[in-house]
Amino acid sequence: MEKAIRIIGIDPGLRHTGWGVIEVTGNNVGFVASGTVHPPVEGTLAERLVALHDALDAVVAEARPDEAAVEATFVNRDAKATLKLGQARGIALLVPGRMGLSVAEYAPNAVKKAIVGAGHADKGQIRVMVKVLLPKATFDSDDAADALAIALCHAHHRGSASARIALAAGGGR
Amino acid sequence: MEKAIRIIGIDPGLRHTGWGVIEVTGNNVGFVASGTVHPPVEGTLAERLVALHDALDAVVAEARPDEAAVEATFVNRDAKATLKLGQARGIALLVPGRMGLSVAEYAPNAVKKAIVGAGHADKGQIRVMVKVLLPKATFDSDDAADALAIALCHAHHRGSASARIALAAGGGR
Repeated sequence: MEKAIRIIGIDPGLRHTGWGVIEVTGNNVGFVASGTVHPPVEGTLAERLVALHDALDAVVAEARPDEAAVEATFVNRDAKATLKLGQARGIALLVPGRMGLSVAEYAPNAVKKAIVGAGHADKGQIRVMVKVLLPKATFDSDDAADALAIALCHAHHRGSASARIALAAGGGR
Repeated sequence: MEKAIRIIGIDPGLRHTGWGVIEVTGNNVGFVASGTVHPPVEGTLAERLVALHDALDAVVAEARPDEAAVEATFVNRDAKATLKLGQARGIALLVPGRMGLSVAEYAPNAVKKAIVGAGHADKGQIRVMVKVLLPKATFDSDDAADALAIALCHAHHRGSASARIALAAGGGR
């Protein structure tokens, strides 16, 4: 019997960090859990990052994934927003890294291409395709849906034939 | 006898993170230690951030500061560099934050103004003034000197009369 591989996807942000866990076993890709971390808006930046760290740390400790994938978020033109995003992203990479997981990074376009079959899908298309690929999936935010998409993208790229087949079937619709 | 307050200043960067610890006691501002963390250039981003985290964590645990200050680094126009800097900065804020320290942030201009007396000082002027204010200071990089300057800036702004006097005397030269 093939060993199940658990993958956590993380879509980082200082206000909302989405996470999604899937399991790849042989020919199956299954939904495990997803959610959104909302660090407090008040407090110093250090306090907000500590809150994000502690919440993500609890999620990863509970979900016990084997591998992690984080969105290499699109760099927009607002340098202040980019710096803030970078800070949240540093935490999102650190938490699974400290637990000894390999942490892959995927550009948003790569995620969209793996899930929807096109690099310019909108959030609605991603939600639909996540539901097609993971019928049992529930998510409480676009960030959580994106995180599941990132996990699926990693399943695709890490060379799991089953995931590739499932994604190809989905992407061809 | 007035209690000594230890302050750690951190100048974050993914390749070089400078740190400097000073002690403010009554009318004295004294040098404690400084150094530079060089995370490995190889490896995944997550691995490099973990190395930065672990090294900084060891520094803070050893130095036992009461308060921390981090440079609110200048946002340059290169979005990719800004994102990278943000990631290192997230770690620099997280480490003292997780130890329960208050973590202040200062813009580079505020640091320069507090130390040199002008917002547009160059690195050479900062090194000179750090040596004037902390004659016993040693530093192995510009980043470590900057980190000491950030700690001195915090001593100035946190309302320590002694630091303010020392800085005013230095700044007036």
